[in-house]
Amino acid sequence: MKKKVVVFGCGLVGRVIVRDLSRDDELSVTVVDRSESALESVERLPLAERLVTDLSDPTELARVASRHDLVVGALPGFLGFASLRSVIDVGVPYVDISFMPEDPLLLHEAAVSKGVTAVVDCGVAPGMSNLIVGRAASTFDRLERVLILVGGLPVLRMWPFEYKAVFSPIDVIEEYTRPARFVEYGRIVEREALSEAELVDLPGVGTLEAFNTDGLRSIAKTIKAPFMKEKTLRYPGHIEKMRMMREAGFFGTEPIDVGGVSVRPIDVTSRLMFPKWKMQPTDRDLTVMRVVIDGYRGDRLLRTTYDLLDHFEEGAGESSMSRTTGFPCAIAVRLILDGTITTTGVLPPEVLGPDPRVYNALMQGLESRGVRFRESVEELSLHQA
Amino acid sequence: MKKKVVVFGCGLVGRVIVRDLSRDDELSVTVVDRSESALESVERLPLAERLVTDLSDPTELARVASRHDLVVGALPGFLGFASLRSVIDVGVPYVDISFMPEDPLLLHEAAVSKGVTAVVDCGVAPGMSNLIVGRAASTFDRLERVLILVGGLPVLRMWPFEYKAVFSPIDVIEEYTRPARFVEYGRIVEREALSEAELVDLPGVGTLEAFNTDGLRSIAKTIKAPFMKEKTLRYPGHIEKMRMMREAGFFGTEPIDVGGVSVRPIDVTSRLMFPKWKMQPTDRDLTVMRVVIDGYRGDRLLRTTYDLLDHFEEGAGESSMSRTTGFPCAIAVRLILDGTITTTGVLPPEVLGPDPRVYNALMQGLESRGVRFRESVEELSLHQA
Repeated sequence: MKKKVVVFGCGLVGRVIVRDLSRDDELSVTVVDRSESALESVERLPLAERLVTDLSDPTELARVASRHDLVVGALPGFLGFASLRSVIDVGVPYVDISFMPEDPLLLHEAAVSKGVTAVVDCGVAPGMSNLIVGRAASTFDRLERVLILVGGLPVLRMWPFEYKAVFSPIDVIEEYTRPARFVEYGRIVEREALSEAELVDLPGVGTLEAFNTDGLRSIAKTIKAPFMKEKTLRYPGHIEKMRMMREAGFFGTEPIDVGGVSVRPIDVTSRLMFPKWKMQPTDRDLTVMRVVIDGYRGDRLLRTTYDLLDHFEEGAGESSMSRTTGFPCAIAVRLILDGTITTTGVLPPEVLGPDPRVYNALMQGLESRGVRFRESVEELSLHQA
Repeated sequence: MKKKVVVFGCGLVGRVIVRDLSRDDELSVTVVDRSESALESVERLPLAERLVTDLSDPTELARVASRHDLVVGALPGFLGFASLRSVIDVGVPYVDISFMPEDPLLLHEAAVSKGVTAVVDCGVAPGMSNLIVGRAASTFDRLERVLILVGGLPVLRMWPFEYKAVFSPIDVIEEYTRPARFVEYGRIVEREALSEAELVDLPGVGTLEAFNTDGLRSIAKTIKAPFMKEKTLRYPGHIEKMRMMREAGFFGTEPIDVGGVSVRPIDVTSRLMFPKWKMQPTDRDLTVMRVVIDGYRGDRLLRTTYDLLDHFEEGAGESSMSRTTGFPCAIAVRLILDGTITTTGVLPPEVLGPDPRVYNALMQGLESRGVRFRESVEELSLHQA
């Protein structure tokens, strides 16, 4: 009997997940979107159903979820938390990549009491970054420092922005304005977004600029390490322009009066700038990530570095951001359905990392899909010669 | 019998001119502004009159002009042409620094037929730059190349703009958007504003960025040289931000729809950015200009370079831009009244430059007010060793 999986949302990432799952003979895949044209993008796939319905209606969402063995959440972030709550309520396993602004761990107890496994933030970053940190935490005696650098970028650098939004542009601006939370000396500290820009050389992409963003999410709570920081990567120069715009008020969300008319600066900025940030059909993207973990094994201080560089896939026409976000999710679906993941509760990937079966399945599953992490280890000498 | 001079406009430059003229026992000075508070800035000076009236009314303007021996135009640029026309009509000599957008030479014939001397663009650039070029044109057998670099800058470079508007900020944006006209191979060519940014080291200010602006004005017509170009100077980095904003549409003058509301991007930008560009009472400015003239004397190719660096004057609290713009105008007033300048017509300063009495009086007059040009000459070898 085939397992019935439903994918909520047929956006750029959703359709990669649908395509991946539909290759699996053991699965019966349904995809739901309120837009018929979004569903047309997967009309050639052998799916159980393509369902046009509005999942912002909780009753409808619960009704669809309850008819399936597992739900994949690939909805816009603002619908993520409500979707997670509804799916937990109806007692169906869940894997989510919606990047919800709320803290999904608030629903952990609810999920445990319903006996539901709900893997959240199961993309690339958050996602694979969390898994790697969780794995490292279990293999080191003690973590000292975690640094996550990640960026989704156009291959071609085009003046003036040298950037295209590989996901919702308003969420990009949100990254540029929300204060960044880090861990320093074991405590949460706040830094201005876009602060502490530094140049980093990364294999295959050259020199990028890394700056503070609020991306630690759950690992700030679930992982114990005195220093943890997440930074976003862009081509050098982009951030200086974004800081200028933010400083001058162009990202402001409070209405201002302009010759008797009231407008929000961010709305004007979105209207002018976002068309220029839009990925065009001929645009190609890449995803670059580096995770650096310093920790002790006995009295040896080791540094493990994981590097990812992924490109747009010409065959399927899948953007790198969709691939690197959708594949971990599609793999996690199988790990729940085949009983590899049995823990109940709301589970960010760092909680799954210590289990070598889960870790290896995700790493190998990605590798078989062409997404490869390079891992290197070096010993940090504590005593200068 | 004292000569009666009236100054139209008591803005930042107008009041410097009024102060300068009021020191002269042979002059009876009146100043006119529609704003009483603007006139308060000169209330301690021994003036004939401080007159509150609206000079955008041509009848009133002509009435006031006709009661004086000379009129100084220090009105906003948009009133400049109308003011010039009215003063010519009533047959009174005129010196103007309004930087009118129209071509004042269109009124030349009218001025000649009325027997009026009207010196226009009589500030620093346009102004002293024109005078210098006109002088050079008369002392060389043939000009090859004219380059004018000029900028009014805050002394302190403050992120992100590293700029304060030393005159009307909307005129600054106009400089950043209006195509720049140059002379190349003797023909007028157009370049995008802000284009061809290059770094220039200037004595006492360090490295600045020079970029194309539309500043040749009358000398594009009055001076014969195969290559002529004007560029504006800013601290490096400013222009990249301005180009980005222009490119993204933030300087757009056509209304756009933002969530059902119609606004002009430039109005939103002005509302957000101009407060940050405003010179504060503690801000200090500088004016930097370099004029480079290559030309032949016989078969020798010579390069003459004029450098100006002027600072805010603490004693009188006069900004450098007001000083360097107002002083040439105040000196030209004397040269008309004492009969040194007798030519009739609309005269940009390059037309006056060939007369050594006028040239020297302006240069020495500026020097006595602390505004000094450094002149250097070198021979350009046409044959490599």
